Amino acid sequence: MNLSRVLVYGMGLMGGSLALAIREKFPNTEITAVVRSEKSKTTILTKHLADFVFLQNEFQTPNWSNYDLVVFSTPVESILKIIPTLPKSGNTIFIDLGSTKETIVSAVESYFGDITHNYISTHPMCGSEQAGPDAAVPDLYVDKLCILTSPKSASNASLEWVRSFWEKIGSWTLEMDSQSHDETLAYLSHLPHVISTLLVNVAGSNPTTKKEILESSKPITGGGFRDMSRIAGSNPDMWISIFKENQRFLLKSIDDLIQQLSEFRNLFGSDGSFDESQIRKIWELAIANKDEIRKTK
Amino acid sequence: MNLSRVLVYGMGLMGGSLALAIREKFPNTEITAVVRSEKSKTTILTKHLADFVFLQNEFQTPNWSNYDLVVFSTPVESILKIIPTLPKSGNTIFIDLGSTKETIVSAVESYFGDITHNYISTHPMCGSEQAGPDAAVPDLYVDKLCILTSPKSASNASLEWVRSFWEKIGSWTLEMDSQSHDETLAYLSHLPHVISTLLVNVAGSNPTTKKEILESSKPITGGGFRDMSRIAGSNPDMWISIFKENQRFLLKSIDDLIQQLSEFRNLFGSDGSFDESQIRKIWELAIANKDEIRKTK
Repeated sequence: MNLSRVLVYGMGLMGGSLALAIREKFPNTEITAVVRSEKSKTTILTKHLADFVFLQNEFQTPNWSNYDLVVFSTPVESILKIIPTLPKSGNTIFIDLGSTKETIVSAVESYFGDITHNYISTHPMCGSEQAGPDAAVPDLYVDKLCILTSPKSASNASLEWVRSFWEKIGSWTLEMDSQSHDETLAYLSHLPHVISTLLVNVAGSNPTTKKEILESSKPITGGGFRDMSRIAGSNPDMWISIFKENQRFLLKSIDDLIQQLSEFRNLFGSDGSFDESQIRKIWELAIANKDEIRKTK
Repeated sequence: MNLSRVLVYGMGLMGGSLALAIREKFPNTEITAVVRSEKSKTTILTKHLADFVFLQNEFQTPNWSNYDLVVFSTPVESILKIIPTLPKSGNTIFIDLGSTKETIVSAVESYFGDITHNYISTHPMCGSEQAGPDAAVPDLYVDKLCILTSPKSASNASLEWVRSFWEKIGSWTLEMDSQSHDETLAYLSHLPHVISTLLVNVAGSNPTTKKEILESSKPITGGGFRDMSRIAGSNPDMWISIFKENQRFLLKSIDDLIQQLSEFRNLFGSDGSFDESQIRKIWELAIANKDEIRKTK
């Protein structure tokens, strides 16, 4: 696998961690980073995440073909703006780390049309409630899932190259079309983030709970609440981007949740009685779904 | 602190773990357990969780006064049946490990009336998605919160005894009246369990998600979903008991969540537009609430 020069366009937690992983697996690769802020530039140079760092405004007319691999790890919206500027020939492989796929894949397909290209959209499913190149770690992608979405007219060779790249980094890969990706991710990732965020706000808006919290020197929470609130409120920029790109499926998943919550609530009568057997069924179904989704017993 | 003989009435994960902790902190204490099943009896004897084990039907006319401490760790409903059989005098300290407090404290108050007694209701906030004495571990209560609720007419000496008992076990303690306890716990514990359970069911009921999950050999989940689903479907008996005892506050918390979800959903217009500044406010509020509730920065 030839990987002499990599460009990581946008180097936050994800791009920075990928740079560290590339340093480990491909020690001779030269890494160039493009970032928005002077602060990131300093961090990247201090942590040796890249060999060369440019601010976006210093990198206005990039020669993409200088690189064997270009990784877009900016919000989806800005990837959508770059796609129409890519070269229509050459050997450079293009990937992105976007959390949604439909808008990116549509943009790639409408830009390249029938021309064979090397753009593979990828979604490594990791990340953390932290952000920025400061938080970058070399093993972020190890044993994590990376979803590969191949736009129409992408060369098969580029798909296979990208698959072996991610596997070398330590991820395991799975192919998915863009629409299935976005719908599945709405239910397995985007909805959980919305719920975690609203859960802490619901708890914080109850006056009794608030009073007890403020009067206690230590947290009044068990492991359940701590787990359920870890991802609350994280990375608003990224989530606003996801809400833009995957609104249809996110709203569908929220509507499904509101419906199941309302059905659950209606199992309780106003006299204190409730349908115990139905609650048991819901709990049993949850165990089955949990095992199936998490692939554990 | 005199603790020669302890009775643990109901020995699952919580009672069994308490027995192990007592063995560590009070090595000379004689522990008696009462359980429902032969299987639990065997486990308890094999793991040496107790010195004597009785099945419930072998323990019909207990002499409670034989023990310095009696711990009720059965579902709240069965504690409510035992309370009216307790002696109205003597030095035995009674505690329970119930997850709800209002019904227990009411039962204690109406049974003892103005008579000074030694019943302190406690709620150690730990537990796990596992259950049964098999899962018992000695450090379950270490560095965990134990909420103490003192019914009317409970002696101050018994409250102080129970407080030092739990602190010796390794927990930190906090006093709360029964109603504040139940309302706060609805928001910080019961609602999170309902949400986790319904989340996996919402994800499992989406056909595209289901198809992708079944076709993949590994889980299509990031850390967010894994954290958010850990407590899903756990311990239905305990939860049905909690839904019985704390229905009023649980339903209030569910209604609050449905309202916040609906308000969130309504930030999105049918044309794909949405109120970005409002979403940022919700995300910022979540960070503030999360820090306040978890007491972390």
